[in-house]
Amino acid sequence: MSQNYPSALLERAVLQLNSLPGVGKKTALRYALHLLKQDEEEAQTFIDTLVQLRQGVRYCRMCHNISDTEVCSICSGINRDHHTLCVVENVQDVMQIENTGQYFGLYHVLGGIISPMDGVGPKDIEIDSLVARILPEQISEVILALPTTMEGDTTNFYIFRRLQALNSTGDEHSATPLKISQISRGIAVGGEIECTDELTLGRSIVNRIEFKI
Amino acid sequence: MSQNYPSALLERAVLQLNSLPGVGKKTALRYALHLLKQDEEEAQTFIDTLVQLRQGVRYCRMCHNISDTEVCSICSGINRDHHTLCVVENVQDVMQIENTGQYFGLYHVLGGIISPMDGVGPKDIEIDSLVARILPEQISEVILALPTTMEGDTTNFYIFRRLQALNSTGDEHSATPLKISQISRGIAVGGEIECTDELTLGRSIVNRIEFKI
Repeated sequence: MSQNYPSALLERAVLQLNSLPGVGKKTALRYALHLLKQDEEEAQTFIDTLVQLRQGVRYCRMCHNISDTEVCSICSGINRDHHTLCVVENVQDVMQIENTGQYFGLYHVLGGIISPMDGVGPKDIEIDSLVARILPEQISEVILALPTTMEGDTTNFYIFRRLQALNSTGDEHSATPLKISQISRGIAVGGEIECTDELTLGRSIVNRIEFKI
Repeated sequence: MSQNYPSALLERAVLQLNSLPGVGKKTALRYALHLLKQDEEEAQTFIDTLVQLRQGVRYCRMCHNISDTEVCSICSGINRDHHTLCVVENVQDVMQIENTGQYFGLYHVLGGIISPMDGVGPKDIEIDSLVARILPEQISEVILALPTTMEGDTTNFYIFRRLQALNSTGDEHSATPLKISQISRGIAVGGEIECTDELTLGRSIVNRIEFKI
């Protein structure tokens, strides 16, 4: 289904919807026809909500997560552990970690990872603001929760070196150095050994954890 | 990923995008974040195009296909065969048949098919306008190109009876009765016999076509 749109307006709408991630021409057409089938009020709400999203949404001054306020509810939360900072690639990662209910510290959203292939360098993502954030806020631990890809590893390594440099500056803070950790990698919970890829299995043996009761 | 949206605006946008056909919450979130990443001009074009689609699009007075004009380019086409009418369920079907390059007649878009389970009766789709269209336009053949489902068969049968009634009204037209056909069903081109379902295979034997050289 390539050309032959019965209407130029429809074709333009399909082209726009086609630009959404993972949406082909056929799906874009379904979306466009769905929007046409909605009644006036529904369609208006749909459009208005997208406009409001674009115009109203802000990014937290501290962690760069999406927020309705200047400082997001996590960064300003009195029940959060303000000494721990979890570094993630994007907004979805924050939501995913929040859904685990296992983490109570703060976040730092990089907005991407270092990827020379895509032309993304350290200056293109929020690394400088991360480093700038560490000292004045008395952060004691930084957890790196980046993807386990080559780009993720590169970014991990780069941030690790930048943060280690903070430890080696011989001021009074050096007594309690900043702890830098990364989330553990290994076999997923419920995973079978025989179904795990060799790389993950190999790593999970090398990085084995002492059994404690 | 269920709750914990960092922004109410984002949550509302996700809810709206979630209403698109086949879009879950996770995909809706990806779409919303994609819209946020676009630059101002791109986002404005996206929104404007959808608004223009809603406000500008019309339905052809003749065939009820989507159109930019009161009568669509097919119904007003001088190169089309105005004696043949192909009845389809929706706009996509017209595009799909046009893409075959094998049909040069006119269309009639029902905008649905008869489905008692979904509460869709003959009066809810464009069947009356189809019947009204036949006589004055001197249509000689109606091709039914509806889905090969129970609903499609029901609709085929209902339309067939309505159109046959036109033939039996004993006026001067009865000399050349309206031909009513349906698209052939059988094994797809390139299809293996052993991979064809029994129902299709059985039908394709019953409705076999004489071999001609």
